[in-house]
Amino acid sequence: MTAGFNPPAPQALAALKDIVGDNGWKAGADMERYFEDPRGRFTGLATLVLMPDSVEMVSRIVRYCAGAKIGIIPYGGGTGVVAGQLSPDSADAVIVSLERMNKVREVSVEDGVLVAEAGCILQDIHDCAAREKMIFPLSMASKGSCCIGGNLATNAGGIQVLRHGNARDLCLGVEAVLPDGSILHELSPLRKNNTGYDLRHLLIGSEGTLGIITAASLILKPQDPESVTVFCAIRDHSDGVTLYKNLRAALGESLSAFELMSGFGVDLVRSHFPKLPAPFAQKHPWHLLLQFDGPTGLADTVEQVLGKMFEDNLLIDAVIAQSETQSEDLWALRENTPEANRMAGAFCSSDTSVPIRKIGVFVNETNAALRDIHAGLRINTYGHIGDGNIHHNVFAPEGTPKAEFIQSHPDIIDAVRMAINEVTHRNGGSISAEHGIGRLKTADLEVYASTAKQAALRSIKAALDPDNIMNPGTLLR
Amino acid sequence: MTAGFNPPAPQALAALKDIVGDNGWKAGADMERYFEDPRGRFTGLATLVLMPDSVEMVSRIVRYCAGAKIGIIPYGGGTGVVAGQLSPDSADAVIVSLERMNKVREVSVEDGVLVAEAGCILQDIHDCAAREKMIFPLSMASKGSCCIGGNLATNAGGIQVLRHGNARDLCLGVEAVLPDGSILHELSPLRKNNTGYDLRHLLIGSEGTLGIITAASLILKPQDPESVTVFCAIRDHSDGVTLYKNLRAALGESLSAFELMSGFGVDLVRSHFPKLPAPFAQKHPWHLLLQFDGPTGLADTVEQVLGKMFEDNLLIDAVIAQSETQSEDLWALRENTPEANRMAGAFCSSDTSVPIRKIGVFVNETNAALRDIHAGLRINTYGHIGDGNIHHNVFAPEGTPKAEFIQSHPDIIDAVRMAINEVTHRNGGSISAEHGIGRLKTADLEVYASTAKQAALRSIKAALDPDNIMNPGTLLR
Repeated sequence: MTAGFNPPAPQALAALKDIVGDNGWKAGADMERYFEDPRGRFTGLATLVLMPDSVEMVSRIVRYCAGAKIGIIPYGGGTGVVAGQLSPDSADAVIVSLERMNKVREVSVEDGVLVAEAGCILQDIHDCAAREKMIFPLSMASKGSCCIGGNLATNAGGIQVLRHGNARDLCLGVEAVLPDGSILHELSPLRKNNTGYDLRHLLIGSEGTLGIITAASLILKPQDPESVTVFCAIRDHSDGVTLYKNLRAALGESLSAFELMSGFGVDLVRSHFPKLPAPFAQKHPWHLLLQFDGPTGLADTVEQVLGKMFEDNLLIDAVIAQSETQSEDLWALRENTPEANRMAGAFCSSDTSVPIRKIGVFVNETNAALRDIHAGLRINTYGHIGDGNIHHNVFAPEGTPKAEFIQSHPDIIDAVRMAINEVTHRNGGSISAEHGIGRLKTADLEVYASTAKQAALRSIKAALDPDNIMNPGTLLR
Repeated sequence: MTAGFNPPAPQALAALKDIVGDNGWKAGADMERYFEDPRGRFTGLATLVLMPDSVEMVSRIVRYCAGAKIGIIPYGGGTGVVAGQLSPDSADAVIVSLERMNKVREVSVEDGVLVAEAGCILQDIHDCAAREKMIFPLSMASKGSCCIGGNLATNAGGIQVLRHGNARDLCLGVEAVLPDGSILHELSPLRKNNTGYDLRHLLIGSEGTLGIITAASLILKPQDPESVTVFCAIRDHSDGVTLYKNLRAALGESLSAFELMSGFGVDLVRSHFPKLPAPFAQKHPWHLLLQFDGPTGLADTVEQVLGKMFEDNLLIDAVIAQSETQSEDLWALRENTPEANRMAGAFCSSDTSVPIRKIGVFVNETNAALRDIHAGLRINTYGHIGDGNIHHNVFAPEGTPKAEFIQSHPDIIDAVRMAINEVTHRNGGSISAEHGIGRLKTADLEVYASTAKQAALRSIKAALDPDNIMNPGTLLR
């Protein structure tokens, strides 16, 4: 898709500043933080950062940009890892950051709904729900800095998708500004609302290319009376898949998270976060972190079922958290994994999914394919078994610094990415499970999406954003 | 939206018959069953019924119709109640019935996925899941005849939305034929798949106006170890809302259905289905039918919590089903309600939703508004409290036959519909909760949908179906 937008003229910049007022924009060196990539691969560019504080102000910005054909990059918490919020190749666009739209507008316990503006940080929404003895189940490692607007724009996944679904499954309605500047007021708190094409679901996951989500009605769920966190040691990832199947059958939907971690990965996290206690005295090849939530009495049931899994020789060892602190420590091993990967110098972080029954084949085939590319590569394999979403973080061979390795093997990042994509595709999987396409994967999408799908995506984009002003270059190039 | 399609010429009909072969079409009197409206208000029309038996055949039909600009009416089980499958004003279109595409293509317990063709009857999918000790939770009164293709095209709701969501929430991917005849092969069994706009969600709920869904990957969930069905007597519908809130807080997500029935409604069902046992010896003004599903031990917990509700004076009486048969009998009181309404001569059946906290006001205000229209109207109020989705079935005054009453009050159907819509809208609700827009509610959508929303719907329709061949007159007119 041709960019088709113009560098803003000085009078256009003045007009945009005028819309947001003195406290509503940043330029020059003040923009730098908006150009940072959490994985350090890209550096963004833009002419101006606008920080509107109301949906009407967003509408005026978009209407102006539509008239002047100025590109807009919507910006949330800046935690996206596929450069959906970063324009490395052109400084012509303006960034519209939702950071000042950070109010929780309404909480209704009876309706199980919380209305949050796009700039609300996910952790703040969790806290707000907890004050009402409810939960908003969307959760991920970046919860302390990611914003709900970005979570929805990218249809974020995370660690509780197994039971509660992705971001889109936890949103009942949105308020959004469409590419012509019109405001969609669809903040419905309704569970059932069949009145035309679901524009909410079209905007969710569109990565800011069809409009800017400014607020959302989010689903709150009741806190379950009892929660159980278990850290397990297993022989092989394939035992993890068998355990997943058995535990789902035995415990139904009370299984709310089922995370795989490699022994290498646990060591990596502990080496960078040495205060975190070791779950076991011995080292083990693979681990599972399990979370169960349900009615009173659940802990006893979980213990019984796990006992059966020991007898069936599927578990080597297991620790059941005895306190909330211990549960938090166990979860910290998982949640600090992305940060530990970054600190340890991962040069590639994959995000693909395959059918659950293919996980074993997928892990084996990707590891073999990566060894074929370069024998000494170290791989941290971890992720969400219940979602078929296994991440690989890939490191230079032991003892070789990342920068030196990348310099002497300039094609290795793409080779690794393509190898993982190929294995994923061959096993009926998706080349982007939970991170989206952004600007990083537009070429991959052209390779792996069918012609019919690509034509439909382009028709919809052209119909709603004929001048391609909304996040140009993201998702479709 | 202008119809813009042509009556098929004789050679076009011959070409279409040729695509489907001798057993693949019906004409003349053989088409009659496809013209029937479950509520007897409309009579459909069409030139030809086509019954393709593969997605490729559907594609060839659509491609031909796109070239010849012939309108297509996709047809599932024929149970829709808003005339989405019925064209009463024009015989120019052809019906494409998915009835021969009725195979379950695949079941994977590990992935929790069942791939069903569009013509599969919902009950057959339930049975298939049960054989694997799993459930497909979408359920409604018409489950014995409705088809999954229609369930998805209309985003059907039903009785388990509270816990498991609407049809769209239970579908991971679709195979569909788009208006240009291209085939979208997106039968993904993946929980996480963020690769472009969600065409699945765009097609689901589009009521056949953006394409024909030919198969779907459906989510299977584990059977919960324990299920509890409870029939309650309560003083007032507002106590029902309070109970809903308390039970959700106490029992979390194990609450899977929460149905309101009026005393009048229960009497109505029992008068038409006299074999169904009375739940209580005495008559009561309002009832609740509750379903709980969860881990072993749940029944005891439910009994304790209900005991507390008795103490709090929220319940008059309650029956806990002691066997599967008794549970089925209690559910039969609820599931036969639509049929009893029909047999008793309901002249209007509403389907609106409001925020849960507004249910009390909604029921009171609608009853008052209907009494203002005509003092003696009898109203059966029932529905899904957990979804804010309360139906009203409206009957002529006691002793007046329906036909006679309608004849002497020709405007009453529209007056009742409009009064209910107005109260719904005033309380932040939706004029179509679970049945869709069809051809019945296109004018209502124009009144109650915002300009921005309508413009977006029309842009999308025009982009994907420029000649308006897909279910013309439905959803947008």
